[in-house]
Amino acid sequence: MHNPKDKKPYRDADEENTQLEGRNAVTELLRSGQACDKVFIAQGARMGEILTLAKARGVPVVQCDRRKLDAMSQTGNHQGVIAQAAAHAYAELDDLFRNAEQKGEPPLFVICDGIADPHNLGAIIRSAETAGAHGVIIPKRRAAGLTAVAARASAGALAYMPVHKAVNLSALIDTLKERGVWVFGAEADGNVGLYEADFAGPTAIVIGSEGEGISRLIREKCDFIVSIPMRGKVNSLNASNAAAVLLFEAVRRRTRGK
Amino acid sequence: MHNPKDKKPYRDADEENTQLEGRNAVTELLRSGQACDKVFIAQGARMGEILTLAKARGVPVVQCDRRKLDAMSQTGNHQGVIAQAAAHAYAELDDLFRNAEQKGEPPLFVICDGIADPHNLGAIIRSAETAGAHGVIIPKRRAAGLTAVAARASAGALAYMPVHKAVNLSALIDTLKERGVWVFGAEADGNVGLYEADFAGPTAIVIGSEGEGISRLIREKCDFIVSIPMRGKVNSLNASNAAAVLLFEAVRRRTRGK
Repeated sequence: MHNPKDKKPYRDADEENTQLEGRNAVTELLRSGQACDKVFIAQGARMGEILTLAKARGVPVVQCDRRKLDAMSQTGNHQGVIAQAAAHAYAELDDLFRNAEQKGEPPLFVICDGIADPHNLGAIIRSAETAGAHGVIIPKRRAAGLTAVAARASAGALAYMPVHKAVNLSALIDTLKERGVWVFGAEADGNVGLYEADFAGPTAIVIGSEGEGISRLIREKCDFIVSIPMRGKVNSLNASNAAAVLLFEAVRRRTRGK
Repeated sequence: MHNPKDKKPYRDADEENTQLEGRNAVTELLRSGQACDKVFIAQGARMGEILTLAKARGVPVVQCDRRKLDAMSQTGNHQGVIAQAAAHAYAELDDLFRNAEQKGEPPLFVICDGIADPHNLGAIIRSAETAGAHGVIIPKRRAAGLTAVAARASAGALAYMPVHKAVNLSALIDTLKERGVWVFGAEADGNVGLYEADFAGPTAIVIGSEGEGISRLIREKCDFIVSIPMRGKVNSLNASNAAAVLLFEAVRRRTRGK
């Protein structure tokens, strides 16, 4: 269990020995300076930049048969390179606030309420990073964690984006609100339109799970429920696509005003 | 091969016997009135609405052991229901224009240039449908087609969204331009910012492939290259997330002006 007094990043036993796969993910891992135990490269694969980065960091590189990589692969798409990293270090909530403070920006966080698909989680982390968000919050239970698949889907963004794992998402939202963050749930039947939502202040955007949306308890905690305008017959977006639309509306608000 | 004089929807041999999986996809298929040969439902699964729709349409329902569905499943996530549909009927380009005309709106199309991942293609079709776009265009070769995985990822949107399969994407873009459509490629190094792009007129948005982006030839054909502002260290979004951001910026432009 995570002890809040312990300021060191905590790790989850079930996510030890995280493996990153594919050129982008491995390159970003090596660039970021995060711990990396070993890199496996398929014989004959051109990996000039990865080799240079690994050498510079003193990370051992193992050239091996492509079939070995196929057998190791958890994503089924290793592109000839797999890195064995230490398990992803989760961030403290304070780290997320500090990230915003250091950039001199009002916090912009994404809360994933029960995203089960690691592809979606990875894509959300990628969109959050490209939108300049300051952190992603995921619950400890009943949701995808930072697995190899999520890391790969993040295309390297995970190396730069602090992710906090909350033991209790509901209590965490209370803390955010006490610290002046406005909490926006994203649902189809909201009381605030996408272009009315004021994302310019300290903002957390809650994305619900793929099947169920935001859970009732969390929904009740939100300051606002914001809706993306639905102009077709299908009434919801894929979770990561919804997150991207909301995040870049926040970018627009913050850079262009109303 | 597709004969352009033949006004009937054409089908691809390699996509015959398309199978749709999951509650949303099967429900939307039955609602849409598209051809459906048979529905398989796991014993004990509650499928009241699907049963009602199938009965109303005279579609045979087979109750069977869940393990049979597991064996049939192409997506690994059938949720207790699989429909065998006729292969998806592709639309003519004229159908896409007619769709816009019937709604009294300037065309809004998405062109997928080599999207290889059927999850991404399905998510793009879903976002296009929810954003009120009038059609999606995919190339005939070297790209994901409308497989069961794509259909499932579209969450039913495929039933409502005309998809045109272009033998030659480059020639198709010429045709669009002749018909007054502005073609916007989405790339990181564009000459037009996201909020400068005028998506209010007849618009086609080109989304490049996951790894390579837009191919050189297609890029040269684009009227504009538009860039989503990248505020982090990673310099691109997942293809379907990028499509969602661009599509909903088009919605904002069209409904809210500048």
